Amino acid sequence: MRVLGIDPGTLNLGYGVVDEEAGEMAMVDCGVVSLSSKVPVEKRLSSLYTKLVEIVASHKPDEVAIEEPFVAGNARSALAVGRAQAVAILAAANKNLPVFRYLPTQVKQQVTDYGASSKEQVQEMVRLQLGLTEAPRPLDAADALAVAICHLHQKQIALIIARGK
Amino acid sequence: MRVLGIDPGTLNLGYGVVDEEAGEMAMVDCGVVSLSSKVPVEKRLSSLYTKLVEIVASHKPDEVAIEEPFVAGNARSALAVGRAQAVAILAAANKNLPVFRYLPTQVKQQVTDYGASSKEQVQEMVRLQLGLTEAPRPLDAADALAVAICHLHQKQIALIIARGK
Repeated sequence: MRVLGIDPGTLNLGYGVVDEEAGEMAMVDCGVVSLSSKVPVEKRLSSLYTKLVEIVASHKPDEVAIEEPFVAGNARSALAVGRAQAVAILAAANKNLPVFRYLPTQVKQQVTDYGASSKEQVQEMVRLQLGLTEAPRPLDAADALAVAICHLHQKQIALIIARGK
Repeated sequence: MRVLGIDPGTLNLGYGVVDEEAGEMAMVDCGVVSLSSKVPVEKRLSSLYTKLVEIVASHKPDEVAIEEPFVAGNARSALAVGRAQAVAILAAANKNLPVFRYLPTQVKQQVTDYGASSKEQVQEMVRLQLGLTEAPRPLDAADALAVAICHLHQKQIALIIARGK
């Protein structure tokens, strides 16, 4: 099972690819797609879509997990994050890939056992769970790996529940 | 010159196609793509994208004009409108169509000569400018036609300025 995790930001979109086999997780790739605020929104979204389609084509994930933006107060930034998230959803859904969305608190809870942990704590737990010698960087890439790990945890829990029935 | 105008809403996306030749404008088509709030967001965005790609393929617009959402206060609704707008932008940009964005006040100013006119006033001015016997319905479709008219007005102004130089 290969999962592509995405942390959609307005100017930096993190992505992380994680393989899982017999309960063992391994990192395949991670990175950040950066967009210049000087480029018009339509060009930005279009090039973001193209890059995500390339990532999907080269890594061939089975499922895609996308972080649901935490929206509080600032409507203008919520609009921008909504655009970035929609591009991520479309890049996956247009290839008929199952898309799953997780709240930031769900991701933190699954990865660090604590819903309000810091970005650094998430980064360190991602490192440990993927057996990496160094923490994945930058933070947006680590967050994307955390989203993928969260999704794999959720699947394992669902499997355990199904077996127990 | 054929313009596709889009008024992106969270559950109702209005579209309107307007032809312009020698200063004369004519409506080609208008309508609303409605999305059920019961359908998961990823399915909604994906089917919205598919429908917009179909509209683009059947009407072959030269340019696409999209209303920039008015964001005030509610971050959650801004997130949802941002998603819908991104889908509209991508459906056009992925076909290499030029995309133009207009603020609601710009659209109203161009169509009714008054930036704070009501939806009904916009609807009536759209009817008059397109030479229709009845006002285009529903309101979201009339709004989309207004966005297309706004874009055509802007192009005419740019042309007059260019000739005057």
